[in-house]
Amino acid sequence: MFSDTLLKQIDFIKEIDKIKYIQRKTKLFNSDRRENDAEHSWHLAMMAIVLSGHSNEPVDLLKVIKMVLIHDIVEIDAGDTFIYDTQKNHTNTDEERLAANRIFGILPKEQAEELIAIWEEFELGETAEAKFAKSMDRLEPLLQNSSNNGGTWKEPGVTYKKVFAKKRTIKEGAESIWPYAESLINEGVKKGFLKEE
Amino acid sequence: MFSDTLLKQIDFIKEIDKIKYIQRKTKLFNSDRRENDAEHSWHLAMMAIVLSGHSNEPVDLLKVIKMVLIHDIVEIDAGDTFIYDTQKNHTNTDEERLAANRIFGILPKEQAEELIAIWEEFELGETAEAKFAKSMDRLEPLLQNSSNNGGTWKEPGVTYKKVFAKKRTIKEGAESIWPYAESLINEGVKKGFLKEE
Repeated sequence: MFSDTLLKQIDFIKEIDKIKYIQRKTKLFNSDRRENDAEHSWHLAMMAIVLSGHSNEPVDLLKVIKMVLIHDIVEIDAGDTFIYDTQKNHTNTDEERLAANRIFGILPKEQAEELIAIWEEFELGETAEAKFAKSMDRLEPLLQNSSNNGGTWKEPGVTYKKVFAKKRTIKEGAESIWPYAESLINEGVKKGFLKEE
Repeated sequence: MFSDTLLKQIDFIKEIDKIKYIQRKTKLFNSDRRENDAEHSWHLAMMAIVLSGHSNEPVDLLKVIKMVLIHDIVEIDAGDTFIYDTQKNHTNTDEERLAANRIFGILPKEQAEELIAIWEEFELGETAEAKFAKSMDRLEPLLQNSSNNGGTWKEPGVTYKKVFAKKRTIKEGAESIWPYAESLINEGVKKGFLKEE
């Protein structure tokens, strides 16, 4: 009775509701409540809209927004991995690739292929769009931790060196934001929220 | 030390975190947990990406996505109004207009003006982009209610007639989705979730 295309699209829309249950380590601004993947993805899209003028290279903003909106959908199957986890690699796992194929694969073929390609482009982090999208993904938790007396910087095993290494990604996407980001990290050390070694 | 532009943008990014605390009436799919405005806005943006081929008129997808991502930001000051509220008008209140000016006004002037204009265009609902964005805003809770044994259709004062009148907006934006949407409403009546009068 209804087109196969529409029914597949509706199935996908229902399936991705599940990212609202995936809790991140990081907490909301000035808060003790952990953020979920849908909230996080919405915030990154808003940041991309507002901060796109800071991208090192001109970007296709629509593609950046698609990237940040979908980048965590694979976590429905693969779960969220803490960025400073020492046991498990954060990205590009086989588990995530399988998840991408299953979840985006619910869509009609052409759309599935488009979103899988955009997700892979984000993961590779080589294009201007992926670099800028990744800089947003690194900046949001930095802003949150700095508003939360260090937040996840106080987790075991997190050091200034590790944070600095991860946050350098911001510079690769948005050089003009980097000095500000760096100042927040340094402030975290000064205030004793982040261990130097 | 940092540019005024960047600092204003960061202030805005922090301020809009508050929509994660604004609870809607509608609940997540197959769930008892109410949805918040950030989750809702993320989901509408994903729906716009996936369903844009159903728009009655060609749309600038980037603008549609901006519309749905920002459409509820005014609720930080004005609060969420239940769509079937009989006491209070749902949209275009003076309160919402003041909220738009205050919140988007945190941004640098040009960006503030752009987002206020996009929000107003959405509220007016006259352009192709606004019509399609509004059809997404009506479709999501319909899908949710139909997955939740009627959900908010069981609230006092909600009838088939009122739901049908509100949901007709879907047809104005996306004719090819309407028969499916209508079938969900009719199913709600058949199952006794929605009162005919």
